[in-house]
Amino acid sequence: MKKILLLGAGRSAMALIKYLFDNATAEHWYITIGDIQVAHLEPLVAPIDFAKTITFNVHHAEQRAKEVSEADLVISLLPAIFHIEVAKECLQQQKHLITASYVSPDFLALHAEAQKNNLTILMESGLDPGIDHMSAMQVIRNIQGAGGKLISFKSYTGGLVAPESDNNPWNYKFTWNPRNVVLAGQGTAKYIKKGQYKYIPYHKLFQRTDEFYVDGFGYFEGYANRDSLSYREPYGLLDIPTMLRGTLRRKGYCEAWNVFVQLGLTDDSYTLDGSERMTHRTFLESFLPPAAAQGQSMAERVSLYLGVPRESEIIQKLEWLELFEDTPVGLESATPAQVLEKILKQKLTLAPGDKDMIVMQHLFEYEFDGEQREITSTLVVLGEDEVQTAMAKTVGLPVGILAKLLLRGEISHRGIVIPIYPELYEPVLKELEQYGVRFVETERML
Amino acid sequence: MKKILLLGAGRSAMALIKYLFDNATAEHWYITIGDIQVAHLEPLVAPIDFAKTITFNVHHAEQRAKEVSEADLVISLLPAIFHIEVAKECLQQQKHLITASYVSPDFLALHAEAQKNNLTILMESGLDPGIDHMSAMQVIRNIQGAGGKLISFKSYTGGLVAPESDNNPWNYKFTWNPRNVVLAGQGTAKYIKKGQYKYIPYHKLFQRTDEFYVDGFGYFEGYANRDSLSYREPYGLLDIPTMLRGTLRRKGYCEAWNVFVQLGLTDDSYTLDGSERMTHRTFLESFLPPAAAQGQSMAERVSLYLGVPRESEIIQKLEWLELFEDTPVGLESATPAQVLEKILKQKLTLAPGDKDMIVMQHLFEYEFDGEQREITSTLVVLGEDEVQTAMAKTVGLPVGILAKLLLRGEISHRGIVIPIYPELYEPVLKELEQYGVRFVETERML
Repeated sequence: MKKILLLGAGRSAMALIKYLFDNATAEHWYITIGDIQVAHLEPLVAPIDFAKTITFNVHHAEQRAKEVSEADLVISLLPAIFHIEVAKECLQQQKHLITASYVSPDFLALHAEAQKNNLTILMESGLDPGIDHMSAMQVIRNIQGAGGKLISFKSYTGGLVAPESDNNPWNYKFTWNPRNVVLAGQGTAKYIKKGQYKYIPYHKLFQRTDEFYVDGFGYFEGYANRDSLSYREPYGLLDIPTMLRGTLRRKGYCEAWNVFVQLGLTDDSYTLDGSERMTHRTFLESFLPPAAAQGQSMAERVSLYLGVPRESEIIQKLEWLELFEDTPVGLESATPAQVLEKILKQKLTLAPGDKDMIVMQHLFEYEFDGEQREITSTLVVLGEDEVQTAMAKTVGLPVGILAKLLLRGEISHRGIVIPIYPELYEPVLKELEQYGVRFVETERML
Repeated sequence: MKKILLLGAGRSAMALIKYLFDNATAEHWYITIGDIQVAHLEPLVAPIDFAKTITFNVHHAEQRAKEVSEADLVISLLPAIFHIEVAKECLQQQKHLITASYVSPDFLALHAEAQKNNLTILMESGLDPGIDHMSAMQVIRNIQGAGGKLISFKSYTGGLVAPESDNNPWNYKFTWNPRNVVLAGQGTAKYIKKGQYKYIPYHKLFQRTDEFYVDGFGYFEGYANRDSLSYREPYGLLDIPTMLRGTLRRKGYCEAWNVFVQLGLTDDSYTLDGSERMTHRTFLESFLPPAAAQGQSMAERVSLYLGVPRESEIIQKLEWLELFEDTPVGLESATPAQVLEKILKQKLTLAPGDKDMIVMQHLFEYEFDGEQREITSTLVVLGEDEVQTAMAKTVGLPVGILAKLLLRGEISHRGIVIPIYPELYEPVLKELEQYGVRFVETERML
């Protein structure tokens, strides 16, 4: 019997929990699920004898030590800021750990100690980061193994709404933490193009998009992620002339989102005076220059200030959000980003029955035998409903499969590890196909 | 004999040193000037018996304690980050302190202790902040004393180049720390207009300027400072509907500076890859989207990217800076802001004989007897040359005069104090007039 301690039981954990339960009997697992709130899992856990829930507080040192010490493997889907505390406990208690979050400098500092103790702390094991690494590395190794030389790698991922549930002018609904969507891209985006480093400040990010077409799904656009450069080393692409990682949205989303950025509505660095008395309209007023003429509508003022045509789809998207209405905001001491998030959530939340959609596209250019070729590798995953989302599935399944590999003793890498090695990605990508998570690859001459 | 310890002996201290020396005999002062480098002051100090220089390191605890303990008053013109260490030493040794820097939260935390010990820590005592407080408070108290009700207060200050030395298309030269000029305005500007809070994000700041005319000196423009709201309380203007503090530049400066902001050249938050190999042109290239067509010039690309007409004065200003040339930058691990500062310093530095100019303008609107009136109060100070600058004079003189008042026992306020009280500003403004630092006031009905 192997014991798994899963920390984090929010909606995003449901696909992982299902995977763990489905495999528990065959793999001889006992699963303990801990979170601040676990009552919603009782109906699921009550009839089975290989799992239980516990009320768990990550800051409670005694409980944390006890639960981790009793596990063979810890999986954390808690908010990323809590992971480091869990990781230190795992080191203390000599346990392996899996998370779906980014490797931070805090974690890198644990690498040597984890290696010395023969422990694996497997990070970036969800969708993005996670499946993106695995699927990209598989193609990169194939190209390199055949003697090809990579000259360009671009990779875009987006959590979107499925076409059949796409009924708003943004062609978007929140399928993950809305706060992260509001703050996305802040800082400076860095990438490299034909050997030239490029830097895009946040206020230009949503104007500098690339366009994509995905067979059967139409047009998308992508904006650059903050750091496209740091994966050159782990990917073995230190000399690649072009490398860019980005976020996918439906065409037209970015130019409208850019209005929020230009106005300053995504700023999370200060609180607004009197936000508790604000309406959508007075919130917007705080960011506009005084009206040039009496009787100008908010739509006209935004249009004039930002040089956006009054009759454009951009303004229609804002009107649809009721941004110009006197609807109370109802938030005390809120930052602009918090107010914007609240306004957006009223309109962009998945409704019952809504399906989400994950789109990931890698574009590889390489030289082989004197020719230039391009491989496009595309993944589209549709959710089942607003709970069994494609997002939860594509984050949870790779974590679950990696947990199985780790408990079977089939992962030899130790220390802080991300899934860039064939030992990890080959079995994960293969098993993912059984769940409909399958990349479609096309190749052409350039 | 009263002993003054002056910390900081850079160029900006020269006017203060002259003032202290001129008053030393009559006031029975002995002046010790301490800094990391003091050799340049030897010729000045050698012939006199009421002053000496010492090599002083603010981080050397023993020396700091000794020198402060021997003084009756400490004046610090060191970089602002060092002031808190000096202030804590002054509290320890029971000494008064004067600085020209902003009151930070660190300093506010010392207020109660300083009061309890009957000590005065006089801050914001230079030009801006300093003379701005004093001159504004004098007018505000006069209006309020006569029964008027303030409805609007706007105040702008700029350190510029004098008309006779103004020989470049920017109508600007550095008269203070160039790094601060490059970083100016970062964060969000906050002000209040007709009771409505307004927030301007940095990337819009240089597009939302006001225009001014100063008799005999022509047109200026002003952009909002980061925080115009925090002085409502000390100024006794908590209910004022409109309040804005800003920075003055010559007309046309801001729209050209905005190019730097839009491109991202003023960012100080990350270092550029390979900055040591960059030229002005490749630095700029890092921030531009790829050229839309072969053979496009850098000027055309900037023009297209930012929507700035190719034949505009904006592009001419950039060309004059040689921003499009292949001149090596020559800085290792530099931030964009550091590279931009270096490029600007090559062209915007005061030349021998160049004179600088300080312009400050307050605009007060108030109601009195059912009428609306406006008072405009304007200060223009011209420098003597590139060393005896108007900037050094207007920072140093108020500090010196306040030192005299404090040592004479004519300042009764204790704790962290800024010069907003008649006891402080009346004698300072009066004495400043002897040095040609004189406001011109005009009043009109609205």
